[in-house]
Amino acid sequence: MNKSLFGLIFLALSAQVCAAPSKLSMSEVLQQSHDAEWRNVDPENTLYMELDKGRVVIELAPQFAPRHVANIKTLVREGYFDGLAVMRVQENYVAQWGDPDEKNPRQMKQGKRQLAPEFSVAANPAQRFVRLPERDGYAAQVGHADGMPAGYDPKTRQTWLAHCYGMVGAGRDLAADSGSGAEMYVVIGHAPRHLDRNVTVFGRVLQGMPLLTTLPRGTAALGFYEKPEQHAPIKSIRLAADVAPEQRVKLQVLKSESASFKKAVEALRNRGGDWYKVPAGHVELCNVPLMVREQK
Amino acid sequence: MNKSLFGLIFLALSAQVCAAPSKLSMSEVLQQSHDAEWRNVDPENTLYMELDKGRVVIELAPQFAPRHVANIKTLVREGYFDGLAVMRVQENYVAQWGDPDEKNPRQMKQGKRQLAPEFSVAANPAQRFVRLPERDGYAAQVGHADGMPAGYDPKTRQTWLAHCYGMVGAGRDLAADSGSGAEMYVVIGHAPRHLDRNVTVFGRVLQGMPLLTTLPRGTAALGFYEKPEQHAPIKSIRLAADVAPEQRVKLQVLKSESASFKKAVEALRNRGGDWYKVPAGHVELCNVPLMVREQK
Repeated sequence: MNKSLFGLIFLALSAQVCAAPSKLSMSEVLQQSHDAEWRNVDPENTLYMELDKGRVVIELAPQFAPRHVANIKTLVREGYFDGLAVMRVQENYVAQWGDPDEKNPRQMKQGKRQLAPEFSVAANPAQRFVRLPERDGYAAQVGHADGMPAGYDPKTRQTWLAHCYGMVGAGRDLAADSGSGAEMYVVIGHAPRHLDRNVTVFGRVLQGMPLLTTLPRGTAALGFYEKPEQHAPIKSIRLAADVAPEQRVKLQVLKSESASFKKAVEALRNRGGDWYKVPAGHVELCNVPLMVREQK
Repeated sequence: MNKSLFGLIFLALSAQVCAAPSKLSMSEVLQQSHDAEWRNVDPENTLYMELDKGRVVIELAPQFAPRHVANIKTLVREGYFDGLAVMRVQENYVAQWGDPDEKNPRQMKQGKRQLAPEFSVAANPAQRFVRLPERDGYAAQVGHADGMPAGYDPKTRQTWLAHCYGMVGAGRDLAADSGSGAEMYVVIGHAPRHLDRNVTVFGRVLQGMPLLTTLPRGTAALGFYEKPEQHAPIKSIRLAADVAPEQRVKLQVLKSESASFKKAVEALRNRGGDWYKVPAGHVELCNVPLMVREQK
């Protein structure tokens, strides 16, 4: 009797706590958003990776990795990736693609195989970093810039993209400058945030993640496939700008600095509806999902 | 010139900071661990879910959900799950299984379809909660008990299993008491910690995750499959104790209270080796992976 009374009081208090300011769900917030709060994804910074089963759409973030993005665009435009493969899928970690043939590596024309790293970059106002009030264990500050999850250190004024699910980085060997975007990986599981500032992250998948996450896991060390016939072939990687307009997928990203983005994050922090009994009162950086839609 | 000098000093300082006490990797720590630091997984609290492509091994945690575990064992022993199916796989969220036939639900004998929830339980010393020093946004304290990631609230003295990758819970409808373990889900992506204390979590997958994570994603709302022929059939779920000893997989879990567990967590917090350039100095609860091995 006492227990259930406690229960009732507790539920009443919780309901009160999370009644203000709104109990909309994230999807309701997005439905009520204004068109002006969304930005069109730039075809000059969008990659289409064509796999046997469909297209993976990747948005590039030149503001966080200008050298890598420029090099990747060069490689894409010289056809470097066409016919290469996904050669590594490690459970709860990453899928990785590039040139699986170490003995006879594909030649590059203007593209580069090694680049000075961009593990972090000097923050600039154009990035419009929208800070989350939440404390984070891996960065002094976290938030979003152009919809991308990012860390920021006010002491060094450096910023970097965070290794959340769906983020894409440039694989490298031991040396910091041994990557260039010629080999790419995407996070397919729980965010390996310990990779932050250890690898150059240059973009994220906007559409098509299941094409990568449902691939068979590699059984060699680190999830590499053991045999070439296990590789998932890449038909091509193209810049959206180089694809006929009618073959493009027109996506929009909710602006991080919009009122609806803020409301959506609050809807994640204290979830509404009848299902949730205990609001978290907190949202971790990588639990803020991508807010993307097809252009109307 | 100045910049590279700064770089050198910074690297030297970092190396100093993370040199003590050890630069072993987690796998090196596990290799050097003592046999007495591992516990055999109890066949009375282990489920084998047999799918077309193999076996998923689930460890039950009666200390966190005694009613649900008892009910699940009853359901398993009456053959309730045999011939049911995985009917939901939602990208970066959960795979879920149970009875997909809402119109003609399978009958239960002794098992129950609804149970009072066990979203959290009173902590007791037998759980041997080993706290992480890290701050967490979703719980006052986090750590491990019997190798399972858990939250703890010192004010209420309640504890609960956290929704990390691989954790298994009892699906429910709107009412808190509408689950019983007859429908189960496993986290297949980034930890949805906002579910903590909103659902009863009763165990975790010890082996076989890729059998679930590589299933096609459902295309209906919430990742449910649209057609029955898309379901992934469950041949059977058995308790390991009811399976002939030679057909069991003998697994061991590193004890959370062991010295090697602590060392392994430190190896995750400040990663050694030549690859990492910036140690995180932090490890988030769900970035401590399952430490499990086959019995020697």
